[in-house]
Amino acid sequence: MSASAAPQSISIAIVGATGYTGAELLRLLASHPQANVRAVTSRQAAGQRVDDWFPNLRGHYDLTFSAPDAGALAACDVVFFATPHGTAMHQVPALLDAGVRVVDLSADFRIKDASVFAQWYGEPHAAPDLLAEAVYGLPEVNRALLRGARLVAAPGCYPTAVQLGFLPLLRAGAVDASSLVADCKSGVSGAGRSAKIGSLLAEAADSVLAYGVGGHRHLPEICQGLNAAAGSEVGLVFTPHLVPMIRGIHATLHAVLTDSAADVQHLFERAYADEPFVDVLPAGAQAGTRSVRGSNMCRIAVAKPPRVGSAPPRVVVTAVEDNLVKGASGQAIQAMNAMFGLPEVTGLSAPALLP
Amino acid sequence: MSASAAPQSISIAIVGATGYTGAELLRLLASHPQANVRAVTSRQAAGQRVDDWFPNLRGHYDLTFSAPDAGALAACDVVFFATPHGTAMHQVPALLDAGVRVVDLSADFRIKDASVFAQWYGEPHAAPDLLAEAVYGLPEVNRALLRGARLVAAPGCYPTAVQLGFLPLLRAGAVDASSLVADCKSGVSGAGRSAKIGSLLAEAADSVLAYGVGGHRHLPEICQGLNAAAGSEVGLVFTPHLVPMIRGIHATLHAVLTDSAADVQHLFERAYADEPFVDVLPAGAQAGTRSVRGSNMCRIAVAKPPRVGSAPPRVVVTAVEDNLVKGASGQAIQAMNAMFGLPEVTGLSAPALLP
Amino acid sequence: MSASAAPQSISIAIVGATGYTGAELLRLLASHPQANVRAVTSRQAAGQRVDDWFPNLRGHYDLTFSAPDAGALAACDVVFFATPHGTAMHQVPALLDAGVRVVDLSADFRIKDASVFAQWYGEPHAAPDLLAEAVYGLPEVNRALLRGARLVAAPGCYPTAVQLGFLPLLRAGAVDASSLVADCKSGVSGAGRSAKIGSLLAEAADSVLAYGVGGHRHLPEICQGLNAAAGSEVGLVFTPHLVPMIRGIHATLHAVLTDSAADVQHLFERAYADEPFVDVLPAGAQAGTRSVRGSNMCRIAVAKPPRVGSAPPRVVVTAVEDNLVKGASGQAIQAMNAMFGLPEVTGLSAPALLP
Amino acid sequence: MSASAAPQSISIAIVGATGYTGAELLRLLASHPQANVRAVTSRQAAGQRVDDWFPNLRGHYDLTFSAPDAGALAACDVVFFATPHGTAMHQVPALLDAGVRVVDLSADFRIKDASVFAQWYGEPHAAPDLLAEAVYGLPEVNRALLRGARLVAAPGCYPTAVQLGFLPLLRAGAVDASSLVADCKSGVSGAGRSAKIGSLLAEAADSVLAYGVGGHRHLPEICQGLNAAAGSEVGLVFTPHLVPMIRGIHATLHAVLTDSAADVQHLFERAYADEPFVDVLPAGAQAGTRSVRGSNMCRIAVAKPPRVGSAPPRVVVTAVEDNLVKGASGQAIQAMNAMFGLPEVTGLSAPALLP
Repeated sequence: MSASAAPQSISIAIVGATGYTGAELLRLLASHPQANVRAVTSRQAAGQRVDDWFPNLRGHYDLTFSAPDAGALAACDVVFFATPHGTAMHQVPALLDAGVRVVDLSADFRIKDASVFAQWYGEPHAAPDLLAEAVYGLPEVNRALLRGARLVAAPGCYPTAVQLGFLPLLRAGAVDASSLVADCKSGVSGAGRSAKIGSLLAEAADSVLAYGVGGHRHLPEICQGLNAAAGSEVGLVFTPHLVPMIRGIHATLHAVLTDSAADVQHLFERAYADEPFVDVLPAGAQAGTRSVRGSNMCRIAVAKPPRVGSAPPRVVVTAVEDNLVKGASGQAIQAMNAMFGLPEVTGLSAPALLP
Repeated sequence: MSASAAPQSISIAIVGATGYTGAELLRLLASHPQANVRAVTSRQAAGQRVDDWFPNLRGHYDLTFSAPDAGALAACDVVFFATPHGTAMHQVPALLDAGVRVVDLSADFRIKDASVFAQWYGEPHAAPDLLAEAVYGLPEVNRALLRGARLVAAPGCYPTAVQLGFLPLLRAGAVDASSLVADCKSGVSGAGRSAKIGSLLAEAADSVLAYGVGGHRHLPEICQGLNAAAGSEVGLVFTPHLVPMIRGIHATLHAVLTDSAADVQHLFERAYADEPFVDVLPAGAQAGTRSVRGSNMCRIAVAKPPRVGSAPPRVVVTAVEDNLVKGASGQAIQAMNAMFGLPEVTGLSAPALLP
Repeated sequence: MSASAAPQSISIAIVGATGYTGAELLRLLASHPQANVRAVTSRQAAGQRVDDWFPNLRGHYDLTFSAPDAGALAACDVVFFATPHGTAMHQVPALLDAGVRVVDLSADFRIKDASVFAQWYGEPHAAPDLLAEAVYGLPEVNRALLRGARLVAAPGCYPTAVQLGFLPLLRAGAVDASSLVADCKSGVSGAGRSAKIGSLLAEAADSVLAYGVGGHRHLPEICQGLNAAAGSEVGLVFTPHLVPMIRGIHATLHAVLTDSAADVQHLFERAYADEPFVDVLPAGAQAGTRSVRGSNMCRIAVAKPPRVGSAPPRVVVTAVEDNLVKGASGQAIQAMNAMFGLPEVTGLSAPALLP
Repeated sequence: MSASAAPQSISIAIVGATGYTGAELLRLLASHPQANVRAVTSRQAAGQRVDDWFPNLRGHYDLTFSAPDAGALAACDVVFFATPHGTAMHQVPALLDAGVRVVDLSADFRIKDASVFAQWYGEPHAAPDLLAEAVYGLPEVNRALLRGARLVAAPGCYPTAVQLGFLPLLRAGAVDASSLVADCKSGVSGAGRSAKIGSLLAEAADSVLAYGVGGHRHLPEICQGLNAAAGSEVGLVFTPHLVPMIRGIHATLHAVLTDSAADVQHLFERAYADEPFVDVLPAGAQAGTRSVRGSNMCRIAVAKPPRVGSAPPRVVVTAVEDNLVKGASGQAIQAMNAMFGLPEVTGLSAPALLP
């Protein structure tokens, strides 16, 4: 396929489609006019109907999970990996060789430095030669590289919100890059569709819990992006919290302004003026994660908090997204659209579900 | 009554008992062996039974709301004000003159500087002469002053968690006092039992929302306490968030260490070794707000986050409390116990409700 | 416009669009290719932008609420009333006279007998002459009448689920029509976007509450539909419950079978074989309300419970729907599609949001 | 120990204390003046501190889980089994032989007919000789038998609510015993503290789901109790539902009155006049499960629904309880109190947590 002509139909396979990001790909692709999902694979669920797992998809797909089969995958235009970390890096090289494009929703190709990957993910990288080619799939940063890319690493949920919220400030040199604080709150679906005690409703409801304070795997991914924007090594503390909601990420980003008079509202409005999926709210407004639930939008609010006592001038940026859409599957589809020369918004334009 | 002999029975009135903090006083006092609630007042609910409003109290009280009546209040040993801000300051002087003690759960007597009160609460203070006498009812700070006090200002919910989390660091000079960040998350009961659209389940559930970013009334109260501990004016940004839970406050407190090698775990353990209602978790542990639901405990965890890039050494303190107990009614009862010479834990020792 | 040719564009006004059903019309119509929303009215919000009220709609509409104005409404092809009961019946006659079609989401035109309306809604009907013409907008029952109708009364949320669940049984004479039990559970959005204490998250979360046990306004509407299907007056007890979720209705329908050997699974599959928005689950399956969240689908499961002791043979039908979609705004759009000769599924085919 | 003199201290062991009913026993016993918990056993958690598992218990117990050890158990006055079904029946005989009393929270000794047990629990009963002696621990039914009992089978959560709601009607012959409908809703903690996909917050929140429609293990237990009250075999359909709350059971009980004029309100008030843990609400009132959260109370409301069409006269009884307290651990302690001659309310009198 030529990258210059958008296709009428894109044949798609999803590897590992029994988790939440896989199910979300299927939900979103059901409204995508060019998407043609041909195969969904799962070792665990092979032979079972997709809509027995996800009853919301009844009537939308007539698909049965198949065991992973390189041949069937190689017959598709693009393969999404919705697998845990450590799977895609073993299978991607053969797929690329077969001329298939890949969008990997796992962390396997996000980090450019194989040794950093090994340090945080506990195993050596299986395809380090591809790290340079892999495009980090944040369209607001890498739009030009996505067009025609063979391999895209879809960003993590926290990294998307934190980067979109900090990038304009860092690029403009508007903040002290060494003292960034990202205090983030995530819904429970971020932990995936796996049976963990801590994710039970009876454990996680009616509670807020900090976790990963001693170090979270998204930290190096975030820093890689912020460093590139700042042109130097930033200093960041990243504190994730589990909050009792199904979907949603709320990132509260604290930084010290280099100029107390900076017009940060204007800075953000200008930075994202042409972005279809970044919405800068009017000054003074805040939006809850509910305002983006089910949608691919990231909404950003910018505020200068009251300056008391000895405090330096500060900015507080809040960024909200649906962790399964802009934080995962929606952004992956946005990347696919860009890869295949489709308008990025294709299939992604439904408003969020509110209330 | 002599302050030196604990009473067998304390006769109690509650003004404004139709809200959550009033109802919580009643719930907790039902298990307090010396408490004898004699009157609950409410203009709105006068003549109605308390347990028609709060069915959980059926069988525990045979009480009817009465219209506020200075005479009935003056016959009690202590009056709790569970009213909105701006009520207590008008009624307290006469009660003190009548020899009644007062615990005010509103903000009326928390801030020592009447002009600061006027600035944040939008009206001049009605009893500025009492501000010096009023004891700020954080027992971990003002224990000595509570014993025998006539007038106690029970702290706000956010200020309790933020102060308990920052005080040991500030007193020890262990952090840069000018760059404090308090990123706080509150359950919806913090907005009170009033009919507001934003507090509807259909609005607030499955969402996280920052609010008060441009300035929240708890800011001057928090700063007053932190300044005293630091011995100088601190610099603080305070960012509250609404999270979809009924009760609970989670304060995530960020500060830069003056000495990267400081043993902050030990610092907190020593600071709170004798406190019945501050529980410092073992190093590495975190506790959700659920671990304190319904109880008067504040649990604190201390961590040093990974230091990346150009970041200065940091500490992240998390403090969780039940906003209606340690953040309001429980702490008010703890103060009452101290005022009357009872063990502070009296009536407050039940474990939190988990799950 | 001729009823026989589907229009390229339908100009639409929504009266009372500040509530949940109005906002849901806007959300759904944003994905409807023929919909052209020209006016949204609200006395309360006149002059304010729609997306200031509903931030999920930012970027989808450039609309400002206007005060109700008969002229502007009369210029539209169809007017939706998303108002409380008692409003539409005063305004509809003039609109019909002006050649405008109306879909009323309130109860004003649902009940055919004006005296029954007056009894349950507390005021005489203002337009009793239109009751005969008004089409009760349950497409599964009145499809033929919807085509070309001038005035459609969109069914209530509970009545939709209860009727869809009972109708096949009653039409087939398969159950004792005098002993029907409808035990129903609704999310809190069913109470509307109005500030009521009982709908607060701090009141309604983590709780289940029966209400309206002594009589609920949906009872006569349900009975009217069931009576028609049974060909006689049914006997029904209808017990609604408030459950802590945002959206969703779960109707559990109990009936005694006239023939213990009846193949009720087959009965339902046949009855709804051609319905785009009724999904009969395979025998043995159950689906949660989440499986229809945000979608116009009603999923139905049919089961014969174990027969113990002296129990007669029974059937238990469960029907789930989103109260704001199939129970209100989605069904109203489905009716509009039918009225204008469009495929009923137009704009309504997105899968439910799960998780 | 003589049954006639209440002990000053009861030494207690809990087998299987890592689940919710075990943790709830510990929570409640922390406020019980005579309780002295000496051992908590768990194969899985042996050697770990109890408060590492349940941080709400920090400061209340200095206990470590031990491996099950018959000797240590035999040294206690009473052993609670908070184990899954199938464990207690193997260990109880030896404990009874050693003179230890047992309260079993599992189903092992609830059903008098060993063959019924085998049918519903999938294995033969290991101690059928003890079934006759085991007292079914519903104090409202078996108070006299509890005093001095050696072995008590604490009732299931659903059976408690359903029996307390139906018993007065059946004993009085006020309803048609062959057409009972129990439509019940449970919080997710009823599924236990085990990692199941269906109990994840991301699965169970914002949804209602019927389950066990084809047969639930609590059915024979409920029927056994109802049959005894009715003096004949009742006919019952029991339909449980999972609702998105942590704790709570709401039972909605439908029956046909034999006399439409029966004063059912009075019937219930008289039946439970002396019961400390059954609260009959005033006519017309309803209470949510929240009104009993954390408490041992069961609240009951009685209503006659409007009689429409051909409907026979009906009564709708709603009964709410906390599934972990009156539905499990609280009731088990109430039984222990009765066994040891203590007032039944000992340690169980705290009001429910509301909001």
